[in-house]
Amino acid sequence: MMADPRFFAVAGPLSVGALAERTGATVDGDASTVIRGAAPLDTAGPDDVSLFDNPKFREAFGQCQAGSVVVHPKDREFAPDGMALLISETPHKAYALAVQALYPEPEISPGVSEGAHVSAEAKLGDGCGVADGAVIGANAELGAGCTIGSNAVVGEGVILGEGCRVGAGATLSHCIVGARVNIYPGVCIGQDGFGFAPDAEGHVKVPQIGRVIIGDDCEIGANTAIDRGSNADTKIGPNCWIDNLVHIGHNVRLGKGVIVAGLCGIAGSTVIEDFVAMGGQVGISGHLRIGTGAQIAGGSGVIRDIPAGETWGGYPAVPIRQWHRQSAVLAREAKSSNQESGKS
Amino acid sequence: MMADPRFFAVAGPLSVGALAERTGATVDGDASTVIRGAAPLDTAGPDDVSLFDNPKFREAFGQCQAGSVVVHPKDREFAPDGMALLISETPHKAYALAVQALYPEPEISPGVSEGAHVSAEAKLGDGCGVADGAVIGANAELGAGCTIGSNAVVGEGVILGEGCRVGAGATLSHCIVGARVNIYPGVCIGQDGFGFAPDAEGHVKVPQIGRVIIGDDCEIGANTAIDRGSNADTKIGPNCWIDNLVHIGHNVRLGKGVIVAGLCGIAGSTVIEDFVAMGGQVGISGHLRIGTGAQIAGGSGVIRDIPAGETWGGYPAVPIRQWHRQSAVLAREAKSSNQESGKS
Amino acid sequence: MMADPRFFAVAGPLSVGALAERTGATVDGDASTVIRGAAPLDTAGPDDVSLFDNPKFREAFGQCQAGSVVVHPKDREFAPDGMALLISETPHKAYALAVQALYPEPEISPGVSEGAHVSAEAKLGDGCGVADGAVIGANAELGAGCTIGSNAVVGEGVILGEGCRVGAGATLSHCIVGARVNIYPGVCIGQDGFGFAPDAEGHVKVPQIGRVIIGDDCEIGANTAIDRGSNADTKIGPNCWIDNLVHIGHNVRLGKGVIVAGLCGIAGSTVIEDFVAMGGQVGISGHLRIGTGAQIAGGSGVIRDIPAGETWGGYPAVPIRQWHRQSAVLAREAKSSNQESGKS
Repeated sequence: MMADPRFFAVAGPLSVGALAERTGATVDGDASTVIRGAAPLDTAGPDDVSLFDNPKFREAFGQCQAGSVVVHPKDREFAPDGMALLISETPHKAYALAVQALYPEPEISPGVSEGAHVSAEAKLGDGCGVADGAVIGANAELGAGCTIGSNAVVGEGVILGEGCRVGAGATLSHCIVGARVNIYPGVCIGQDGFGFAPDAEGHVKVPQIGRVIIGDDCEIGANTAIDRGSNADTKIGPNCWIDNLVHIGHNVRLGKGVIVAGLCGIAGSTVIEDFVAMGGQVGISGHLRIGTGAQIAGGSGVIRDIPAGETWGGYPAVPIRQWHRQSAVLAREAKSSNQESGKS
Repeated sequence: MMADPRFFAVAGPLSVGALAERTGATVDGDASTVIRGAAPLDTAGPDDVSLFDNPKFREAFGQCQAGSVVVHPKDREFAPDGMALLISETPHKAYALAVQALYPEPEISPGVSEGAHVSAEAKLGDGCGVADGAVIGANAELGAGCTIGSNAVVGEGVILGEGCRVGAGATLSHCIVGARVNIYPGVCIGQDGFGFAPDAEGHVKVPQIGRVIIGDDCEIGANTAIDRGSNADTKIGPNCWIDNLVHIGHNVRLGKGVIVAGLCGIAGSTVIEDFVAMGGQVGISGHLRIGTGAQIAGGSGVIRDIPAGETWGGYPAVPIRQWHRQSAVLAREAKSSNQESGKS
Repeated sequence: MMADPRFFAVAGPLSVGALAERTGATVDGDASTVIRGAAPLDTAGPDDVSLFDNPKFREAFGQCQAGSVVVHPKDREFAPDGMALLISETPHKAYALAVQALYPEPEISPGVSEGAHVSAEAKLGDGCGVADGAVIGANAELGAGCTIGSNAVVGEGVILGEGCRVGAGATLSHCIVGARVNIYPGVCIGQDGFGFAPDAEGHVKVPQIGRVIIGDDCEIGANTAIDRGSNADTKIGPNCWIDNLVHIGHNVRLGKGVIVAGLCGIAGSTVIEDFVAMGGQVGISGHLRIGTGAQIAGGSGVIRDIPAGETWGGYPAVPIRQWHRQSAVLAREAKSSNQESGKS
C-alpha cells in the first residue's frame, strides 16, 4: 500500500538492498526489487514490504504477493518462491525500521502561527512550531524542535524536552516532560488527582501538590489522562508506550519501557516496574507493585502484587495458568450441569 | 416534558394525527390530542408523547398520564383507558420520528466566525458553519452544510462529506469521512495507532501510514478515539453508532450498522461485520472476526472469533447460555461450600 | 515534600499548633514544630506533615521521619518516639484540611483574555477569569468568580454557579451547573445521549431533548463524558466526586456524595442513590437502581439492582462475600483438577 499522498510524504522508492542496509537485515533474493509502500501479508502487492512474525498468518505468507517480506531465519521456509526476503533475528524491529525509511516523520514547520497564544514569559527553543489556537502559558519552557498542535494547551511552568510533539487539543499542566515525547491529541496531563477525605457533609479535597514527570521517548495515546501526584510526583519512565484512553492515577510510577494498552486504569500510588506489559482494559488497584517484566492479560483486574517476570490474568487476576485452569473447570462443570438437566 | 427553550427550539405543538402521518403509525383514540413534548412513561403529562416497548415498564404504562404513547399492536391492551395511542409495528422507530417532528435539528448558522482559523487552501462547501476557535488545515475539503464546533480541529487534507457535524474540541487528521456523520465533542480521529516493535533498548515505532475511512450517517460519541491504520486503513462502515469513550485500534474494520456502547475497546486489525451490537466495556482482542449480527454482552472480554448471529458473554467470552450456566454453577457451588463450612 | 514553586504558591510554613487549629486536631508533642510541605509516610522529612490511616503502612509509620503525622487516637501507639502528632477522630479529613492550609487554591486572575471569544450576549459575574482561546456562547451565564481555562468551550445558554472552574479544553453544552463545581480538562458535558431506534435500513436517531443538571461542589475528572438526557434530565447531585474517563449515559441520576472512580460506565436511566461508592472500571446496566450507601468493587459488572448499604462485586456482580466464595471455590477446584491431571 502506498500511503495516501494527501496525508503522507513518500521518501521511497527504496530497493530491498537499501532497506537491508537501513534495517540490519540480510537479503535472500533479488536485492534490486523496488519497494514503495508497506501492507499486511494478505493485501501486499509487488511494491510493498510486509512482515511475517505471527504463525497464525503462515498461510497468508505462503500466498503473499509482496515484493519483500521481513522474516526470521527460522521462518524463511514458509516464503513463496522467488520472493526477495529481508532476513532478521528481530523481524518486527527490522520491519519498523524499513517503514521508517520509506515514510520518515514529516518535517516540522517552524514558527509560531498568528493564531497561537504564546505568553511573553514562555521560552521556546530553536525551530519549534506552534499551530493556530495553541496556548503556551507563562514560564513554560520548550526544548528545540517541539511541535505544538492546533488548540493544544501547554500550561504555566510546564517544561518540554527537545523534539516533543503535543497533539491537537491536548492539555498539559504541572508537568516536566523529557525529550522526544509524543503526546497524542486529547491527552490530559497534570490535572488534580482523585484525592479527598470522604465525608457525609461533603467530601474534603486534599490539594494535589505533586507533578507529573515523564521520561524521554514516551508515547501517550489519544484522550489518555495522567493525574499529577498528591504529595509525591506521578512518574512515567523513559520509553513507555501508553495507548488511548488510559487512566493513570496520582503518585503512580511506571519504570522504563512499560507497555499499557487501551482503556487500562492504574489506581493511585501503584508502582509498575520496568518492561511490564499489559493488555487492554486492565485495572490495577492502588498501592500495589507489579514486578519487572510482568505481563497482564487484557481485561484483568489486579488486586495484589505481581512478582517479577510472571504472567497473570483474570478477575481477580491470578497466575495465567491458574486462570486458564479455572476457565476450563468452569466450562466443564457448566457442560456437565447442562447435561444433567437435560438441556441441549 | 417540554424541552428547555434555553437550549432547544420547539417546532410543535402537533396533533396525534399529525404525528401519525409523520411516523407511519395509526391512531387509536382522539387524533386531535395536542402534543408538545416527550417524556418517559412515569413522568409524562397530557402534552407529552411517550414510548412503551419494554415489558419491565408495563405497570408504568398502565398508569401513564401521557397524551399519547407509541405502542406495538400486541401491547395496546395494557394502555390506560381513553389514551390516544400511536400504534406501530416498530414503536421505537415511530417514537424516534415523532420526537424528530417535535424537535427538528437546529438550523446551522452558516459562515466562518472571525475567531476561526481556516487555511486559505481549505475548501468549504456551501452553507458551512465554522465556530470560534475552530481550525481547518490546508487542503481540507468540507462538503456543503457542515458544522464545525468551537475549538474543533480539522487537520490537513481531511475530507468531510455533506452535512457533517464536528463537535467542540474534536480533532481530526488523516481521515476521509462520509456524509451526515455526527462527530461528538472531544473525539480524536486519525492519530497514530499503537504500533511498535518491542525492544529493551527502546521500543521502535512503526510509522502508521494508513487512514481512517468513515461511511455515511455514523455517530461517534464523545471522547472516543479512532486510530488510523498502520499499513491498511481503519474503516467504519455506514450507519454505525459508536458511543462515548470507545477505543478503536489501527486497521480495525466495522461493517454497516454496527453498535458499540460506551468504553468498549477493539484491538488492532479485528473485523466487526455488519449489524454486530456490543454492550458497554466490551474488549475484543486483535486479529479477530466477529460475524454478522453477533451480539456481545456488556463487560465481555472476547479472545476468539464469534460466529455470525450468535450472542456471547463473559470473560473470557463464551456463548451466552454457556456463560449463564457457568454463573449459575458457580453460585450454587459457592453456596454449597459456604453451608459446609457452617458460615451464613 | 515542598511543592514545586514552578507550579504552586506556598502559604506556609505553619506550626503544628497552627495546623491543629485549622484542622480541629489536637497536638501530642511539640506544637512549635514547623511544617512546610506534605509527603507520604515513607518519604516525608522533618518539614512535612503526613497521614497514617491504613494499617498496611504501620511499619512505615513507625520509621517515619515526618515532622508531624495526622493519626487516629487508637493508632498513636504506633508512632515513632518524639514525633509531634496531630490527633483526630477523622484523620483523613484533618490531613486534607492541613494540606489546604499549607497550599490554598491559587487566586483567580480575573478578566477576559484578549484571545478569548466571549459572546456579547453572555453574562459574566464579577471576578470571572477567561483564558486565551476559551469560547463562551450566547446567553451563557457565569456566576461570580468562575475560571474558564484555555480553549474550554461554554456553549450557548449554559449556566454556571459561582466559583466554578472549567479546565482547559473542556466542552459544555445543554447544562446547568451549581456552585463551586470543578470540571477538569477534556471533560465533555451535555452532548447527545446514545439514543436511537435500531433499524437495518439505518438506525433512527431519537433527538435528545433533556439537559444535564449538576449540583454544587462536584468534581468531574479529566476526559469524563456526561450525556444530556433524552426525554428527562441527566442529574448529578451535590458533592459528587467523579474520576477520569467516566461515561455517564442519558437520564442517569446520581444522588449526593456519590463517588465514581476512573473508567466507570453508567448506562442510561440508571439511578445511583446518595453516597454510593464504586471502584474503577465498574459497569452498570441501564434502568437499574443502586441503593443508598452501596459499595461496588472495582471492575464489577452490575446487571441488577443493589439494595441500600450492601457491598457487591464480580462479573456479573453479586454480594461481595458470595463473590469471594466463588473465587475461592474456583481456585480450589482448579488446583484439584490440576493435581488430578498430574500437571505442576
